[in-house]
Amino acid sequence: MKINLDKTITHVKGFKAKGISCGLKRSGKKDLCLISSEKPAVAAASLTTNKAKAAPILLTQDHLASGYIQAIIVNSGNANACTGQEGLKNAYRMAKGVAEELRIPEDAVVVASTGVIGVQLPMEKIIRGIQEVCKDPSVEGGMEAAQAILTTDTFTKSIHVELELGGRMVSIGGIAKGSGMIHPNMATMLSFIVTDASISKEILDRAFKESVEDSYNMISVDGDTSTNDMAIILANGEAGNPSIQDEGEDYRKFKAALDVVNQELAKMIAKDGEGASKFIEVSLIHAPSKQVARVLARSVVSSNLVKAAVFGSDANWGRIMCALGYADIPCDLSNLDIFFENGQGKVQVVKDGTPILFDEDQAKDILDQSVVNILIDLKDGVYGAKAWGCDLTYDYVKINGSYRS
Amino acid sequence: MKINLDKTITHVKGFKAKGISCGLKRSGKKDLCLISSEKPAVAAASLTTNKAKAAPILLTQDHLASGYIQAIIVNSGNANACTGQEGLKNAYRMAKGVAEELRIPEDAVVVASTGVIGVQLPMEKIIRGIQEVCKDPSVEGGMEAAQAILTTDTFTKSIHVELELGGRMVSIGGIAKGSGMIHPNMATMLSFIVTDASISKEILDRAFKESVEDSYNMISVDGDTSTNDMAIILANGEAGNPSIQDEGEDYRKFKAALDVVNQELAKMIAKDGEGASKFIEVSLIHAPSKQVARVLARSVVSSNLVKAAVFGSDANWGRIMCALGYADIPCDLSNLDIFFENGQGKVQVVKDGTPILFDEDQAKDILDQSVVNILIDLKDGVYGAKAWGCDLTYDYVKINGSYRS
Repeated sequence: MKINLDKTITHVKGFKAKGISCGLKRSGKKDLCLISSEKPAVAAASLTTNKAKAAPILLTQDHLASGYIQAIIVNSGNANACTGQEGLKNAYRMAKGVAEELRIPEDAVVVASTGVIGVQLPMEKIIRGIQEVCKDPSVEGGMEAAQAILTTDTFTKSIHVELELGGRMVSIGGIAKGSGMIHPNMATMLSFIVTDASISKEILDRAFKESVEDSYNMISVDGDTSTNDMAIILANGEAGNPSIQDEGEDYRKFKAALDVVNQELAKMIAKDGEGASKFIEVSLIHAPSKQVARVLARSVVSSNLVKAAVFGSDANWGRIMCALGYADIPCDLSNLDIFFENGQGKVQVVKDGTPILFDEDQAKDILDQSVVNILIDLKDGVYGAKAWGCDLTYDYVKINGSYRS
Repeated sequence: MKINLDKTITHVKGFKAKGISCGLKRSGKKDLCLISSEKPAVAAASLTTNKAKAAPILLTQDHLASGYIQAIIVNSGNANACTGQEGLKNAYRMAKGVAEELRIPEDAVVVASTGVIGVQLPMEKIIRGIQEVCKDPSVEGGMEAAQAILTTDTFTKSIHVELELGGRMVSIGGIAKGSGMIHPNMATMLSFIVTDASISKEILDRAFKESVEDSYNMISVDGDTSTNDMAIILANGEAGNPSIQDEGEDYRKFKAALDVVNQELAKMIAKDGEGASKFIEVSLIHAPSKQVARVLARSVVSSNLVKAAVFGSDANWGRIMCALGYADIPCDLSNLDIFFENGQGKVQVVKDGTPILFDEDQAKDILDQSVVNILIDLKDGVYGAKAWGCDLTYDYVKINGSYRS
């Protein structure tokens, strides 16, 4: 498997992209992007579970039922959420505009939007923009596309992975945006993955669902999703590998590569959390089930008090115990060990469920670094999970105290 | 019903208290308190659901089974949590010490602790302190007791309510502490309520459980409780009212008074949230069930993004919609109205599920006040609930970035 952070979605066979500015962002930054596949692609997606679903989510749910997707149109700067019937009509107008320009069926287009909530899209700008963005999307346009989906993100998030399947080189590429509202309680997230693998829709669905569970869902508390969250994958089969139809060896290799793509993008989103100064990884090992591991790891990384303690370089294992204790899943915490670690070193703070004396200076040196790993060993099974987040800083409060204005 | 914020638990017949400093707090502030009843009292309690239960919680669970409680010993400065078998032994030694001094059964004593986690209690200081605090507790000692249970609280929390039941005057008094970790995701809270009402244990249990649900549980997300949370009520029957044995008229009057006590204490805890600059009340009205109203109100008041928006005086109704949308309970949000209001005025920001134009200056004037009410009208039923919290400020991050040190 070859991982390349300088390549992107358009380095996957048969995919092109383009990113432009159509005037949605006052800054003049790129705000409209098209991702298109030469051939119809099978698709799988994970959409927000929020009851207040934005218009593009409703459209995408609808169009995914067609079975094949050939284009994704994304605007940033305006979420088209809480915009009622007019908003829904506008989302369908966006899909129709793309379909006409690219001469593909309307229901082969999905739509994603991110930005301010509750304001109608300026449709004249959007329609003019769609005409422009649909002209000559290219292989070079991948990075522009990655830029055009951002809102308050401070860097573009892109990855490309290559692997061999049945003697053919297969690629998976992905771009994502997070940042706006990335506190684990309400991560707003868009992720667009494309692959040239040949794979059945059913198997793609299964692989993507599981992979999302161990990536984007580990930076966001289950069910606590924004109005516009979307992760989607298109597979156009252009690599010519023997089609993956079951969970055999090729599936395992493909799934491993897909996990890398999704987890690396998820980590980039966590690193770019609003106001974040440190990246936190919680590794929960030796749990009695995968679910216990996931729930506990997420509970720790989501705790405001743990996040604030990491910000202050305070080795506050008590808050970690507390967050483990209130996680809503039965488990035995009486025997666990807790460590802080990173390149700077490793320090144990809890052993067999009770605190131990540790070198406070060493702990502070570790916590002063920009990456902090919290290792929790439950010593009660064989399952593990990782969750990612960032510290809670003054800047988080500052940014979120005045987002609309 | 007569509500008096200057009276406290010892203005309830047959209850005395005392608060002293026994050396747990380096500041020299009061850190040990005794609340005692002349007669054995029936008791009901709500204890933390955290799996990492502190030693005093385990002891209290045990002793509540005896049916009658006559004394509560509380120390602040050290939580006796995550302290293993030694911690548990120490909690029992505290109860035994009080029982010997007061000449009551050991299992008539409950123990509560709050403060730093994971450090063994200095038992010499504690035992000497118990000897001192058990000497001449008095009616005058009520306010001292209210001080002795505090940690990072900035003010004492006390209330007294009087009502007439069957021709006799009945009192309910309460003291509480919050502040440390009062973010709704992890409120650490102690609340001690006493009454001279005559009431059966079964009926007291029912009244207290329901009342806790509509008070302390509305400042704290369900299940997200700290290692030491405890709310307890003692009823010693000294008022001589006809004993409340069923849910008749007297029950309703008693319950209404109990709700005032618990809700006012809960609001004081929310107001004293760490670093808080504003108090937020979320009123959810016209919901299809009590449960829907509670879950939605709590979801809004617990949202970091809503809390940060209130801090920044930003009328960000989109975040309120989002928090309503991700609350894990089925409901219809398509028709709701949202208002911000307080003494300064009232402004509607959402009507029938979609945003409306509003006067931004007026909204800012309202949000600039120290009390902000968010009124959400679901227009889908007859049930309502209120939840309380505070804004998310720079000071919250500052305080929680360095709690241990």
